Amino acid sequence: MKIAVLPGDGIGKEIVAQAVRVLQALGESFEYEWADVGGAAYESAGHPLPEATLKLAMESDAVLFGAVGDWKYDKLERALRPEQAILGLRKNMGLFANFRPAICYEELVGASSLKPEIIAGLDILIVRELTGDIYFGQPRGRRASPDGAFAGADEAFDTMRYSRPEIERIAHVAFQAARKRGNKVASVDKANVLETFQFWKDVVTEVHEAHYVDVKLEHMYVDNAAMQLVKAPKNFDVVVTGNMFGDILSDEASMLTGSIGMLPSASLNDRKQGLYEPSHGSAPDIAGKGVANPLATILSAAMMLRFSLDKAEQADRIEAAVKKVLASGLRTPDIWSEGTTKVGTEAMGDAVVAALA
Amino acid sequence: MKIAVLPGDGIGKEIVAQAVRVLQALGESFEYEWADVGGAAYESAGHPLPEATLKLAMESDAVLFGAVGDWKYDKLERALRPEQAILGLRKNMGLFANFRPAICYEELVGASSLKPEIIAGLDILIVRELTGDIYFGQPRGRRASPDGAFAGADEAFDTMRYSRPEIERIAHVAFQAARKRGNKVASVDKANVLETFQFWKDVVTEVHEAHYVDVKLEHMYVDNAAMQLVKAPKNFDVVVTGNMFGDILSDEASMLTGSIGMLPSASLNDRKQGLYEPSHGSAPDIAGKGVANPLATILSAAMMLRFSLDKAEQADRIEAAVKKVLASGLRTPDIWSEGTTKVGTEAMGDAVVAALA
Ligand SMILES: CC(C)[C@H](C(=O)O)[C@@H](O)C(=O)O
Ligand SMILES: CC(C)[C@H](C(=O)O)[C@@H](O)C(=O)O
Repeated sequence: MKIAVLPGDGIGKEIVAQAVRVLQALGESFEYEWADVGGAAYESAGHPLPEATLKLAMESDAVLFGAVGDWKYDKLERALRPEQAILGLRKNMGLFANFRPAICYEELVGASSLKPEIIAGLDILIVRELTGDIYFGQPRGRRASPDGAFAGADEAFDTMRYSRPEIERIAHVAFQAARKRGNKVASVDKANVLETFQFWKDVVTEVHEAHYVDVKLEHMYVDNAAMQLVKAPKNFDVVVTGNMFGDILSDEASMLTGSIGMLPSASLNDRKQGLYEPSHGSAPDIAGKGVANPLATILSAAMMLRFSLDKAEQADRIEAAVKKVLASGLRTPDIWSEGTTKVGTEAMGDAVVAALA
Repeated sequence: MKIAVLPGDGIGKEIVAQAVRVLQALGESFEYEWADVGGAAYESAGHPLPEATLKLAMESDAVLFGAVGDWKYDKLERALRPEQAILGLRKNMGLFANFRPAICYEELVGASSLKPEIIAGLDILIVRELTGDIYFGQPRGRRASPDGAFAGADEAFDTMRYSRPEIERIAHVAFQAARKRGNKVASVDKANVLETFQFWKDVVTEVHEAHYVDVKLEHMYVDNAAMQLVKAPKNFDVVVTGNMFGDILSDEASMLTGSIGMLPSASLNDRKQGLYEPSHGSAPDIAGKGVANPLATILSAAMMLRFSLDKAEQADRIEAAVKKVLASGLRTPDIWSEGTTKVGTEAMGDAVVAALA
């Protein structure tokens, strides 16, 4: 089985290196192939997602991804900016199902800006549709405003859209995930304002009635969901929503834990091919200093084993090793607190490898 | 000066009644005219925003609005549902500038799900554009998908759009508001993905450079803003954003305080005409029980005095009275805590009226 390793920018190289070490320590015979992506690829090949990198990703069973982006690329035209790489990979590989767990580890409750009783034991799964919605809808662009009070003025526009099969498949993913967890789905929409999300609500309801009446389904407006996540996040189990709302709510949910350096993510297509990356970004400010937390990437590698490589037991081993390391008191600076032991990126990788044994 | 009083549904009638009492206690000679809106208007006139109600609102100097919505109207077609009234008022009156303060009152710090040190002293102003964006963009609807992987399938779509003058005027509002506060604006966009919000960012930058270089301007992606609001809300002063992102972020911000029953809002057009309403909803579950918190509506009336009726001193008086009542320990159930005195809607109104004297 072949894994494409795309470290990207910022802390990407350091954290991915540790995840690969952990994978190698499992004793499986995976094939690894490295390639540049994001700003690094723009530097080496003039494009954030070069042909060769895309080809490698498409041919692999899974992609282990670090992070992309750096202030220094802010002035580039949009098509050449690092984040286009991730959009291109999602679209070309058809990675429509994004899984973003927001889990609050017992030892890290104190890291949250929320009160311990609100956040302790949090375990939400955000299922975000990843290849549709206003992210990719056409037409989009700039033009003279065709109508309205400012007809003739410069304007910019985008198109939000979802087709029935796109909504159906992500709904199936969410309901099936819920069955393995708390059996509860909150479908987040804005049906009171948007045609797209009235349709979303209708289709999710139909899928539910036809196939998943055993799962508890609740519909919630996106503004209310943003509130309820702050007020009582533990009321959620699985949250399913579109690409744009999912972008906002999954980041909000992960920040609730206070330890985003711990949170992995997976993006899958219908062939179980997937892209695995930490939920956090490239953190250029601490890149190269050996202090980045590799655990989100290591846990993303565990998701990769489970979802794309059919190695659920190895995934369990990694997750258990990470828990053991946390329990032993080792912490990278982002999750450090009084009474625990501060370590760097590599030492954290060492500890996970040791805990696997 | 004429005030249109539109109580609406659920707790609307009770809370608006108290706000009107407080206004009347000021000794000003305002003219009040009542009308139905939302579900109440659907019941009495077959439409959530009857001609007569709209006409009254348009002719008045300000609208004092309660809340609309009730589960019992969920099955109505969208055009007849209560929330269409609020969209219709915004659009017809041209209320493009929505002000939503998120303030954490000292006495109510404990009501927040966030730790006291994160939330104490919070004072953010969200400036949300209210008549553009995907809320009103045409075309929108259902159709056979014109292209893409699911061409031919049923789909629904909406149009996000902003013209230059729409962005300019809300940017001016935000920068001018910032000058009277912390002199700092965070403009929230999704320029890395959306044409509309790359344009938003460009125009806000131009307005800043041309007129407000003394104000500190920061650009932030909406997903990051959703995170930073949870992590360190006090870093914000004024937040300016579009209609859709503003809907989500303003609700998230108000829930951070834990006391949304205290938060007013104002929606203004370019003639200083405005609609004033509490940030919370119609709460049909507690309607008619006399327990709803009227303070957000009373504070909305204060905003009305300041922004639309040129009575800033009277606004100050009301705000001071509310602070006095809070300090005296009176609390409606939503903000009650051990050691304070639980009172109902009317007793709270009584107390504010008494404190005005
Ligand atoms: C980098 C950006 C295009 C991307 C997105 O908006 O999807 C990111 O925020 C994410 O959530 O993975
Ligand atoms: C009721 C609804 C249409 C409205 C909106 O989305 O603007 C509400 O959520 C608000 O924020 O005032």
